[in-house]
Amino acid sequence: MLVLSNEDIEQLISMEDCIDIIEQAYRDFAHGLALNSPRVDNISPCSSDDAFYAFKHMGGTWPARQIQALRINSDIVTHPTIAGKQRRVKVPLANGRWVGLVELFSTETGELLAIFPDGVAQRMRVGATNGLAAKYLARPESFRVGMIGAGWQAGAQLMAILAVRPVTEINVYSPRQESREAFARDAERMGITVTLVDNPEQCVRDADIIIAATSSMTPVIDPSWLRPGVHLSCIKAQELDRAVIEACGRTVVHTKHQAKQMNNIMPGTPNLTRETVDGWWNQEGMRWGDFADLADLLVGRASAREHETEISCFVNNVGLGLQFAAVGALILERARSRGLGHELPSEWFTESVHP
Amino acid sequence: MLVLSNEDIEQLISMEDCIDIIEQAYRDFAHGLALNSPRVDNISPCSSDDAFYAFKHMGGTWPARQIQALRINSDIVTHPTIAGKQRRVKVPLANGRWVGLVELFSTETGELLAIFPDGVAQRMRVGATNGLAAKYLARPESFRVGMIGAGWQAGAQLMAILAVRPVTEINVYSPRQESREAFARDAERMGITVTLVDNPEQCVRDADIIIAATSSMTPVIDPSWLRPGVHLSCIKAQELDRAVIEACGRTVVHTKHQAKQMNNIMPGTPNLTRETVDGWWNQEGMRWGDFADLADLLVGRASAREHETEISCFVNNVGLGLQFAAVGALILERARSRGLGHELPSEWFTESVHP
Repeated sequence: MLVLSNEDIEQLISMEDCIDIIEQAYRDFAHGLALNSPRVDNISPCSSDDAFYAFKHMGGTWPARQIQALRINSDIVTHPTIAGKQRRVKVPLANGRWVGLVELFSTETGELLAIFPDGVAQRMRVGATNGLAAKYLARPESFRVGMIGAGWQAGAQLMAILAVRPVTEINVYSPRQESREAFARDAERMGITVTLVDNPEQCVRDADIIIAATSSMTPVIDPSWLRPGVHLSCIKAQELDRAVIEACGRTVVHTKHQAKQMNNIMPGTPNLTRETVDGWWNQEGMRWGDFADLADLLVGRASAREHETEISCFVNNVGLGLQFAAVGALILERARSRGLGHELPSEWFTESVHP
Repeated sequence: MLVLSNEDIEQLISMEDCIDIIEQAYRDFAHGLALNSPRVDNISPCSSDDAFYAFKHMGGTWPARQIQALRINSDIVTHPTIAGKQRRVKVPLANGRWVGLVELFSTETGELLAIFPDGVAQRMRVGATNGLAAKYLARPESFRVGMIGAGWQAGAQLMAILAVRPVTEINVYSPRQESREAFARDAERMGITVTLVDNPEQCVRDADIIIAATSSMTPVIDPSWLRPGVHLSCIKAQELDRAVIEACGRTVVHTKHQAKQMNNIMPGTPNLTRETVDGWWNQEGMRWGDFADLADLLVGRASAREHETEISCFVNNVGLGLQFAAVGALILERARSRGLGHELPSEWFTESVHP
C-alpha cells in the first residue's frame, strides 16, 4: 500500500495529462462503462460555536483501469463574510493542516493500493474538467480570459485553459490585492499578458472566456456583462445564478446526476440548515437535470458550440468520484514506475476473516 | 495515525462492551445527536465471468465521542449455490485475504485517527445489535436458542444472546456438518448444552429465541414453525420473507432509514440486476419504513414486548455506519491506553493546502 504526498504528485502529472485521462474516463461513463457513487455529506456541530464538522465522501469505479477511488474530506468549516461576501473557509485544525484523502482500490483483487492527500489531485481535476468543457464549448480563437478569483483554484483554471485554447491575455479580479498580485506574477511567468482590474465587470467586459474560480457563496457574475460569443465557466454552482444561466444560449453542467447528492445535517449545526444546502443545488426551481452534461457532450449526445455568437456556459456543479479514479490511476501508475512514496505492508490493510 | 489489526481488537473489546456502547450511540441517534450516512454500493464487472466487484461504504458521526467513522468494503463477490441455496461468497483475492476497513476521524480537528480491518468490529457490532434488540424484545426467562447457521456470525450471535438472556441450551442447524461441529465445541466451552440437529424445523421447534445467522440469499424460516412467545432475529433481510414477518405480532427493524441505501450497478454485472438488489430491500411491496426501528425502541417511542405469548421479530435489515463510530470509539480509546498498533506520521494523512 503506497502513501504519496502532494509534493510527489505534483512531479507526476501535468494538466494536459489530466484533461486527457478525464476525457477517457468520461467517455467510458457516457457509455455505461464507469460508475460514480453520489457525494454524501454528514454535517454536524463541533465544540466551536461558529464552525461545524463536515465529512464528505464520493466514489468512482473505472473498470478499464481496474481502479475504484474514494475521496474523503474531513473538515472544520466556517462561513465568514470577507470583502462583503459570505465564503466557505475550512479551518486547518489538524496541527495547522487540512484533511482530504484519496484512496485507490483494485477492482480485481479488492486491495487498498494507495492513499494520498487530495489537494493536488483535486485542483488538477477541477481545472481539467473545466478545460475539457472549454475545449468543446469555447470559440477556437479565444485569446483573452477574464478571471474572477486569484487563488489556488484560479491557477489551475489558467493552466487548463492554456492547454486547450491559444490564450495570450488575462484580466484578473480578486477583492484580495495580495492574491491577485501573486497570481499575476505566476501568469506572467507563463508568458501571458496580465491586467489587474479593480472590479469584476471590468475584468470580464472584453473577454472571450470568463472563468469564475472563487470561494464565494453568492453570485459573482451579472448577466448584463455577457457579450455575444463568450464562454463562461465556474467551479461551483453558487458563483452563478439563474439569471446568468438564462442569459446563455447553451449550458452544460458537469453532471446532472448530482440530484443524488445526499446531505445528512444534524439539527443544531451552526449557520447551516437543510434549506441552505438544498438551495445550493436547486436555485429558484432550476434543476441541473434539465441540462446536458459533460459526458453527453464528449460522445456527441449533446451538441458543442454551434455558432460564433452563442453564449456558452459550463457549470461545474458538483465533483465526481470518477475524476479521482481517472487522475488517481495515472498518479499510481507513474508513482510506481518512478518508485515514489512510502510502501506499507499490504497485510495491515487486509484480513483473514470473511465478515 | 494508528493502524490496528483484528488480533489487536479482539483483545480490546467484549460483547458486553459493544452492546453497551451501541446502546449509548443509538440513544443519541434517536434524539438527533448522531448521524448515519447511507450505505452506498458501487457494483461493477471484473475480469472473472462469474464474479463482480462490489465497493461499499457507509459513515457514522457520533459527536458525543467526537468520532466520525467510515466503513469500507472492497470485495470480489460470487453467488454460488451451496446445499441447494444461493449464497453470497466473497473471494479472498488480496493475497488470499479480504478487504474491509474502518477509518476513524476526529470531528474536532478533522484528523484521520485510525485505520483497522473491519472483521472483528463488524462481527461484534452485528452481534451486539441483535443482542440489544433481544434485550428489549425476548421473554426475560428465555433459556433455549435455536440457531440456524454455524459460521463466524453465528458465534457472535451466541455471545450476544448470552450477554442479555439466561440461555443454557442451544439447538444448532447448518447444512455444513463441519461448521456445526466446530460451533458446538465452542458453545460447549461456554458451558452451554448443545444439540446438533439435521433440519431447521427441528432446530427451532422448542426454542424461546430463534436466531438466523447465515449467508443465505433465500428465506431460511417457515412461518408455521413459530410458536407463541418466541423471539426471532436475523442478520440479513433475505433470511426472512414477508410471510414470516406477517406471522409476528411485533416487528422491529434495525433501521427504517435504509431506504437511503443507494445501489449503483453497472450494466453487464454478472448475476446481478438492479431488480435483484432492489428486491432484497423491498420484498413484495413490504417496506421497512412501516416498522419501528431499534433506536425508537431504546427511547420508548416504540414498545418493547408486551405479553408472554407475543411473537417478536428483529430484522437486522442493513448495517449502519454509526455502529462503527460506537465500537470504533471504544477500540481507539483502549488501543491508545494499552499502546497497541502501529503509529504512522499524521503528516502523511494531512496537507498544507486548502482544496
